[in-house]
Amino acid sequence: MRAEIITVGDELLIGQVVNTNAAYVGEQLSFAGVDVATVTAVGDHEEAIERALRDAWNRSDAIIVTGGLGPTHDDITKKVLCKFFNAGLVLHEPTVESIRGLLTSRNLAWSERAQEQAMVPQGATVIPNRYGTAPGLMFERQGKVLVAMAGVPYEMKGIIDSFVVPYFHEHPSGVSILHRTFNTTGITESLLSEKLGNIDEMVGVSNEDRRTTLAFLPSPQGVRIRITVRARNLKNAQTRVEEIESRIRARAGSYIFGCDEEILEEVVGRLLKERGLTIAVAESCTGGLIADRITNVPGSSDYFESGVVVYSNSSKVELLRVAQELIDRNGAVSREVAEAMATGVRKRACTDLGLSTTGIAGPTGGKAEKPVGLVWIGYADEQETLALRFHLGNDRRRVKERAAQAALDLVRRKLLKMP
Amino acid sequence: MRAEIITVGDELLIGQVVNTNAAYVGEQLSFAGVDVATVTAVGDHEEAIERALRDAWNRSDAIIVTGGLGPTHDDITKKVLCKFFNAGLVLHEPTVESIRGLLTSRNLAWSERAQEQAMVPQGATVIPNRYGTAPGLMFERQGKVLVAMAGVPYEMKGIIDSFVVPYFHEHPSGVSILHRTFNTTGITESLLSEKLGNIDEMVGVSNEDRRTTLAFLPSPQGVRIRITVRARNLKNAQTRVEEIESRIRARAGSYIFGCDEEILEEVVGRLLKERGLTIAVAESCTGGLIADRITNVPGSSDYFESGVVVYSNSSKVELLRVAQELIDRNGAVSREVAEAMATGVRKRACTDLGLSTTGIAGPTGGKAEKPVGLVWIGYADEQETLALRFHLGNDRRRVKERAAQAALDLVRRKLLKMP
Repeated sequence: MRAEIITVGDELLIGQVVNTNAAYVGEQLSFAGVDVATVTAVGDHEEAIERALRDAWNRSDAIIVTGGLGPTHDDITKKVLCKFFNAGLVLHEPTVESIRGLLTSRNLAWSERAQEQAMVPQGATVIPNRYGTAPGLMFERQGKVLVAMAGVPYEMKGIIDSFVVPYFHEHPSGVSILHRTFNTTGITESLLSEKLGNIDEMVGVSNEDRRTTLAFLPSPQGVRIRITVRARNLKNAQTRVEEIESRIRARAGSYIFGCDEEILEEVVGRLLKERGLTIAVAESCTGGLIADRITNVPGSSDYFESGVVVYSNSSKVELLRVAQELIDRNGAVSREVAEAMATGVRKRACTDLGLSTTGIAGPTGGKAEKPVGLVWIGYADEQETLALRFHLGNDRRRVKERAAQAALDLVRRKLLKMP
Repeated sequence: MRAEIITVGDELLIGQVVNTNAAYVGEQLSFAGVDVATVTAVGDHEEAIERALRDAWNRSDAIIVTGGLGPTHDDITKKVLCKFFNAGLVLHEPTVESIRGLLTSRNLAWSERAQEQAMVPQGATVIPNRYGTAPGLMFERQGKVLVAMAGVPYEMKGIIDSFVVPYFHEHPSGVSILHRTFNTTGITESLLSEKLGNIDEMVGVSNEDRRTTLAFLPSPQGVRIRITVRARNLKNAQTRVEEIESRIRARAGSYIFGCDEEILEEVVGRLLKERGLTIAVAESCTGGLIADRITNVPGSSDYFESGVVVYSNSSKVELLRVAQELIDRNGAVSREVAEAMATGVRKRACTDLGLSTTGIAGPTGGKAEKPVGLVWIGYADEQETLALRFHLGNDRRRVKERAAQAALDLVRRKLLKMP
């Protein structure tokens, strides 16, 4: 089963609204085992909508249309659907009743515009809209199906959840699709790809027809590896996912900090909590970003004691007891100062772990021997103190993001006793 | 000039990634006076990409393609472009140099995969990519233009800003479109709308053909007001924008902290710098977010001395000399503690200003008299100490974001001697 999504609205073309509807529909269809081949966004123009419908109808089995079904002058999707399916409009009494109930509950009067919302194309199946006045419309012709609904996100979601997803579960495509994502950090896309080796081999020799795919999704937080498995049923798909997972973990396991939506600060938080450990951070170049991320996690007060953002040298001396002489001799951006910051903040806050960053975020302040992007990350616990050097590029915000990620990953590796 | 956007990547079809790239490109093209007619998302499949290119090329004058230009096996856009334009690959020496520089700045080794990134279709104009290894590619044929670039958002933005937007400004379409955005904070969308009054009147009576529009764009940082003016030339458009700006400022001026892309931490930084003042922050519920935002601004070390993230009560006492007895009597989330934190951090860091936050970010920890979302923001300078109370909703991250914004806005208003 091959599906397409058509989203209608000028606001999507000029970037005033990000197309979250398409993402939601795509995700739900994919969970229901339906392959989405194309997403199209067009404006509120008759010819553009008609062309998009025609193209999609010719090449796909299922089409989901959102937008342009509301009550204002620029909502023309229903008119175009009537023309496309050669259908006239008829009054749909249950929709009249439903609109009347909706208006009453918001203390609004019945109007001619409301009446128009209850006019539906002859031969269409009418799908109730709990959250608005425009009903959903389904057309089944030539073994294909088209479902159209309003573009207001919660109205759209109501119809997708209550009607479209159940529809595809009752009309299964014979394929179960399973996605799994592995979130890595501390390794570039190309190096990761080299470590995984031949991808076709990795996803299985019997991978005719691209039934299993593997994709790399890079970001400043690291590279995510996504595998997608299509199988005859969910159990087969799960088995395949587990097989591939074990191969990926064997080759790049230490770089994987989590799966699917998991983020690094949650993983680190969970590890600290499980071990009953506390942490304090001393940030220079990351400027508070590490503390911000740690404290985004609900319940982080259980293990996060305090942080200091020591931007000036005097604050490093005053708040962390870093010796002025150490800074004078090695510079603030150095292994020695990173280590002294980590031990200093750990002692000061009386925590089990201390974590520190000192570096040159740019755009100015770089020198030949200490360029923009140079960052030292320090770590201290009861047994050991160490600092690692990183080169994180030349964009101020991304240096901060990469340094924060590297620092949190250092804690993860230490807690897991990784090298 | 009619344009289309093609975005490539399976992740867009299954809803794993929301298509923010399309929104950004659409917005920038629209600013440059280019009408976007269609946005298409297709997967990493040769035939699908080829079909999308063919359709777009047949009906449009300008095509922007993002995605599928990276170094891994699923990046096939370049291959499809070669086929589509019937071009072989040639080595592009300046790209070799640029990749070498990029790898060096991150301390990474040269690899065969990196080398492949420097192979470009013959006859294409190569567009430098400051932030990644895949260069942008421009094809000009039959009076039409196609520009392709990597889909990593910051790499894509770099090429849109540095190359695509200037290109369309040099190839104008006959209409001048001017957008201006006024960034407000501390006021809701409905209240702001009431203050502005009748919008049609505001944008001008002679507004035939909706040539001028005004839109409200809410976010946790505040509400942006965007006006869009279409005129015969840039001068006319500028005059209209200035007329409307003066009306908006007369009615809601004190809420406007900046224009267009200006963000509050830049405005506050500039005000501090102009006055030669320094600041230190003491954060509880915002967890480092204020310090992170202040230090995102290049040169912030001139006025930002240090910050402390005092999550535990003992750290409030130890790092800020807040009296334990004050916390016992009033609770950590109180006017008294917010004020003591602001004066404490100011004294400790020897700065001109002290800023503090203490509140309940949730999801737990709320009580009837002190619910989730309650935040006290403290401010101290040489003359005065004060604290303001806010109720900022019940979502942990949004409470942090709104509190950080309110705190920075308090500093802005104090520096501008606003009530």
